[in-house]
Amino acid sequence: MSGPAHASGALALSFPRLRARLDALAEIGSYAPGGVARLALTDADRDGRDLVVTWMRDLGLRVDIDGVGNIVGTWPPERYEPPVLTGSHIDSVATGGIYDGALGVLAGLEVIETVASAGVETRHPLAVAVFTDEEGSRFAPDMLGSLVYVGGLALETALDTEAVDGAVLGDELARIGYAGSSPCPAVAPHAFVELHVEQGPVLEAEGVDIGVVTGVQGISWTELTITGQSNHAGTTPMSHRHDAGHVAAAIAVGMRALAEALGPPMVATVGRVELQPNLVNVVAARAVLTVDLRHTDDAVLVSAEARLAELCGELAVSEEVGIAVRSLARFAPVEFDDEVIDRVERVARAQGRTTRRMPSGAGHDAQMLARVCPAGMVFVPSAGGVSHNPAEHTDDEQLAAGADVLLHVMLELAEVS
Amino acid sequence: MSGPAHASGALALSFPRLRARLDALAEIGSYAPGGVARLALTDADRDGRDLVVTWMRDLGLRVDIDGVGNIVGTWPPERYEPPVLTGSHIDSVATGGIYDGALGVLAGLEVIETVASAGVETRHPLAVAVFTDEEGSRFAPDMLGSLVYVGGLALETALDTEAVDGAVLGDELARIGYAGSSPCPAVAPHAFVELHVEQGPVLEAEGVDIGVVTGVQGISWTELTITGQSNHAGTTPMSHRHDAGHVAAAIAVGMRALAEALGPPMVATVGRVELQPNLVNVVAARAVLTVDLRHTDDAVLVSAEARLAELCGELAVSEEVGIAVRSLARFAPVEFDDEVIDRVERVARAQGRTTRRMPSGAGHDAQMLARVCPAGMVFVPSAGGVSHNPAEHTDDEQLAAGADVLLHVMLELAEVS
Repeated sequence: MSGPAHASGALALSFPRLRARLDALAEIGSYAPGGVARLALTDADRDGRDLVVTWMRDLGLRVDIDGVGNIVGTWPPERYEPPVLTGSHIDSVATGGIYDGALGVLAGLEVIETVASAGVETRHPLAVAVFTDEEGSRFAPDMLGSLVYVGGLALETALDTEAVDGAVLGDELARIGYAGSSPCPAVAPHAFVELHVEQGPVLEAEGVDIGVVTGVQGISWTELTITGQSNHAGTTPMSHRHDAGHVAAAIAVGMRALAEALGPPMVATVGRVELQPNLVNVVAARAVLTVDLRHTDDAVLVSAEARLAELCGELAVSEEVGIAVRSLARFAPVEFDDEVIDRVERVARAQGRTTRRMPSGAGHDAQMLARVCPAGMVFVPSAGGVSHNPAEHTDDEQLAAGADVLLHVMLELAEVS
Repeated sequence: MSGPAHASGALALSFPRLRARLDALAEIGSYAPGGVARLALTDADRDGRDLVVTWMRDLGLRVDIDGVGNIVGTWPPERYEPPVLTGSHIDSVATGGIYDGALGVLAGLEVIETVASAGVETRHPLAVAVFTDEEGSRFAPDMLGSLVYVGGLALETALDTEAVDGAVLGDELARIGYAGSSPCPAVAPHAFVELHVEQGPVLEAEGVDIGVVTGVQGISWTELTITGQSNHAGTTPMSHRHDAGHVAAAIAVGMRALAEALGPPMVATVGRVELQPNLVNVVAARAVLTVDLRHTDDAVLVSAEARLAELCGELAVSEEVGIAVRSLARFAPVEFDDEVIDRVERVARAQGRTTRRMPSGAGHDAQMLARVCPAGMVFVPSAGGVSHNPAEHTDDEQLAAGADVLLHVMLELAEVS
């Protein structure tokens, strides 16, 4: 039925075609050159979905949309067995770049177009997914669509999720026309592999072409609400203060010290702080801050969380403040499949690329798929490590290299017949 | 012409009358029980001024309004020599209490009514002032009216001051009908003494009735704008970060340590912090924070400012961030007049009150008047040290004790004839 193995080995994708699709999708929700705002299930997200679905249909893929709005395009369209799945997301943060997520979806589409138009047949069908609400900027948690896809979150719970703007996920899904009928959780894929920009500085700093992703760091997000006492900054002796702002600062400094003491890959970030009343001459009565802790080893992450709790306890006593703790997200570290990892590395090297094994610092849909099938990821460099920013950039040559690796990893996983 | 000295010594004011005026003024701009919002030169401030001016005129005082809206009521009305002046302000912060400022104005009015209705005559006339924009919440700097009154700020400059809401001071003054024609700077008073709530916890904590204020702490307000780099909290190693939020926290913790190392009366406050983009999973690109430093000794204050500058320099290098520094306010410490201080202490003790000499942590109009005449202040306790808050409270007995001290200090300064 098909050409010999060496025919698929010689298959090459069309980078100009991928580039054109990246540019076309980048127009939707564009707010600045290189920047897109396509928050999940907004009109911009709908327009992006419509464009991708049109491309899928034009290529002859079967398009399935499930109850949480995940879109899967399958080739050949008549095959329903577990596919070799790729994909990512097209929703973005409010100040997103044009590659985060979109690269994985459109490179997947390019892989399938390349295989289909060459007439190459594979033992397992190929499919590309657009997962709903990966960023979590509008609806928490992040990676919500892929979490539902693998059965990690009940569909009903997901549909009831309230957005930061008050909208309900199920309503928004229906409003934009993406409340589908395909079942979720879905049948587990044969394998899953995702191409993504690194969003960190490591590959560029080390001059490496391809990141062979070994897993995803565990993530712990905690929101702390500190209740102190508002007082006059001039008339209240230091010893009489219950300064919520000071406690917030002490926690931020303490988490930095913790991360430095534990060393890489521990990262700790206090990215959000809000004081009340937030005035130059008033001791803050209230502070809300978030602590983002990540590590590849769950035991270390648990010890970092324990240190945070201990520090909060010490400060609550010494400053006589209340500290309320709320967990915003907690994902254990994920290890990708050894065979997929080896395959990504071998394929990239065979293509003459330099590689580096590395964990992902960010969460990705692949970590959810890893719950139900062999999964892995391919990273390409991010200029300056910048992401979630219109300055997010990866050179065309690097994008093409990543898509080439994806193509041949998928072909191997799908087994050219 | 007048009764003997013992007649004035026996003079007693009417606390119910003072209480009634405090309650009536507290209605204007009331936003909560015990709380007023009378930002300078708003409609609420105008209504408060109208009420006080009505009371002044009803008592037969001569009412003079100067170019920056300061109101002075003088008794006897026909006398123009330098008066023994008292007074304070009736503007408030957005979340003000009902005693801060109002007590000093209305106790002054009560003193004059008591003296006038008893037919007591004094060598120097008595006067009570309502100074414009003491709080500085709407128009910076604070104590603006009294600063202009003593010639410390040109009237033209003051009138051009822009509010946080964009309004121009001169326009607002005209709009509410308080752009007067009395000259400013004004003729220096013979002496000035101001009654005020402590706004701190010291008198209550020590069970003392009357604070004999020896001076006002020097105040240094600095705004720091830190420019780092926005980055993904999961993918950016600690060593690659330029975290504006961390630098802000390190400055806050450093200023706390500085205040504790220097010991009382040093106070240091970081009351305002704003991060950008202020998201849980993004290293902050930018932070703006304020540092409020106060000390009674200018040399110590200068050394604290130097330590802040040094810390900023160290952090700018170690974190590779930019730090822009802007001075928001700088007032050197003020020492009140020794004779006025002694007099306040002696009068209070003669009335059977316990006293404590103390500096003021907050700025007050009296510190401006101290530039041009012998000046001093009388403090009464603040429950829990709470101020700038609807929970601001002083017991009636304590308010009455303070007003009694003010009465007899003014009578002594004015010399009963």
